[in-house]
Amino acid sequence: MTDKSDSFFIGLSLAVSSSIFIGSSFVIKKSALIKISASGNLRASAGGFAYLKQWTWWLGLATMAVGEGANLLAYAFTPAALVTPLGALSVLVAAVLSSKFLQEKLNFIGKMGCFLCIIGTIIFVIHSPKSEEIQTFTELLDKLSNDVFISYVATIFIISFIIKIVFVPRFGNTNISIYLFLCSAIGSLTVVFCKAVALAIKETITTEINSVQNKSFWLLLITSIVCIIIQMNYLNKSLDIFNTSVVTPVYYVMFTVLVIIASSILFREWEHMKSTDILGSFCGFLVVVTAVCMLNMFKDVQISFKDLNFNVRNRRTLV
Amino acid sequence: MTDKSDSFFIGLSLAVSSSIFIGSSFVIKKSALIKISASGNLRASAGGFAYLKQWTWWLGLATMAVGEGANLLAYAFTPAALVTPLGALSVLVAAVLSSKFLQEKLNFIGKMGCFLCIIGTIIFVIHSPKSEEIQTFTELLDKLSNDVFISYVATIFIISFIIKIVFVPRFGNTNISIYLFLCSAIGSLTVVFCKAVALAIKETITTEINSVQNKSFWLLLITSIVCIIIQMNYLNKSLDIFNTSVVTPVYYVMFTVLVIIASSILFREWEHMKSTDILGSFCGFLVVVTAVCMLNMFKDVQISFKDLNFNVRNRRTLV
Repeated sequence: MTDKSDSFFIGLSLAVSSSIFIGSSFVIKKSALIKISASGNLRASAGGFAYLKQWTWWLGLATMAVGEGANLLAYAFTPAALVTPLGALSVLVAAVLSSKFLQEKLNFIGKMGCFLCIIGTIIFVIHSPKSEEIQTFTELLDKLSNDVFISYVATIFIISFIIKIVFVPRFGNTNISIYLFLCSAIGSLTVVFCKAVALAIKETITTEINSVQNKSFWLLLITSIVCIIIQMNYLNKSLDIFNTSVVTPVYYVMFTVLVIIASSILFREWEHMKSTDILGSFCGFLVVVTAVCMLNMFKDVQISFKDLNFNVRNRRTLV
Repeated sequence: MTDKSDSFFIGLSLAVSSSIFIGSSFVIKKSALIKISASGNLRASAGGFAYLKQWTWWLGLATMAVGEGANLLAYAFTPAALVTPLGALSVLVAAVLSSKFLQEKLNFIGKMGCFLCIIGTIIFVIHSPKSEEIQTFTELLDKLSNDVFISYVATIFIISFIIKIVFVPRFGNTNISIYLFLCSAIGSLTVVFCKAVALAIKETITTEINSVQNKSFWLLLITSIVCIIIQMNYLNKSLDIFNTSVVTPVYYVMFTVLVIIASSILFREWEHMKSTDILGSFCGFLVVVTAVCMLNMFKDVQISFKDLNFNVRNRRTLV
């Protein structure tokens, strides 16, 4: 078994590199969707699957797969409440790459957003839970069959079902939060199931316990894959209908908050944290949320550093 | 003697309330200067002293005096490296009051700035040095006669003198950093001298040592007053020539950085801090700096939350 602090740094590095891959994949996939839209094929939001014929889309998928793989491994080493919020770095990577390859200009507010995103992430990492009680797959299975967690899963499924039946047909194409809520709600389950899968794989490799032979492992693996497909499908629709600049911050906030809720129900990471650390990680998260908003919401505003004249004299002086 | 943690909270409360008074005083004094400018008198920046006849200016001065008094006391209870950065809260108070009384509209970026200012301050307070080695006036006097600190004072005086002679006549009215550097450099000494004065007063009241009878106390008191007058004079000139929206962030950053340098030379607060706390307080400070910039530099940009449509559909969809 690795040392707790080693485990933390391995998980942290995996989470950061996964963000770089996922951030790039966003931009690659978006450029594929633009090509499809230009070629006059049926769009993803209209139920079209033309993107499957685009090699750039597959490249984007591959990049995302590598990123998600690293992410999956990260969950095996560090608490979910640390890994998921680090996803903000993918927003940063996407913003920088979009300004390079998708001709989406990054203005001065966006640059301040990039800066705050990094600062907020550092603050969050300083205060986040460094390790957790659960070390084995069996322990995690035990937690997964806990009543409170089962109620959470049931609630998510019922709410998602209602949204799918009632809200998607009416507001799906006009209100951005509909598809993204489905995405995030299912996503919070994906994260938990993936964590279990990752833990089983890690356990099989590093110890003598062969968790991969456990029937529950395969059940969790299949559930994870189904959840990922649903999540990806809704994210694709959302990205196709709405502007990336609004999809990204809303998705980030919803997804992270729901993962933290799911994770805290399951692992109770916060119970063993000092109150200053809870406050600190909350503040770090809020800085990141503000940064993600700045990075995205002000995209179309024309502002550069030169417009803000540092030597501006008092207007009243000049009257 | 009070307990260390009590001392921290007393100092923190004093620092926060002092920011409220100082923030208000900024707005009151600015409104006095506007009245003078409107009445056609010789302006402060032109060497005029018409503001002395304005009762609002005196009210502003009184408010500032109360604020500075609370600030002075705060220095006796907590490290300077905590008290000075909290001055950012005065920027927040000034921004909110300016939008109420000086018709300076607070836009959406400004509101995000207010929010980040509070978050950044909380992060900074979590990580700041909570107490320091020096507990008595004699100890502080000893530190003040330390070679390194005397070199700092000498450097500040020489640089200030050169700026006053060479740069003020040429660039004083066009480059905002000239007057504000003088202000901040002298200010960093004011803070240290005031801390000594405050410590002596606190010691005389709470213990049997009568530090107020010490000759050095009076020397430090007079030096402090002289420094404050110089500092106030330059700040007035600066506020009169340049827009508050640029004066405030530049002054805040320069002043805080120089105080932290002076304080770390003198008290070596950082030596006993954990590396995560140094990193954390640095991050908190950067968040506050960004917030102060957002609060001020985007003042004249027309942006409201309504302009950033949350339900914005993909432009490419609509083509």
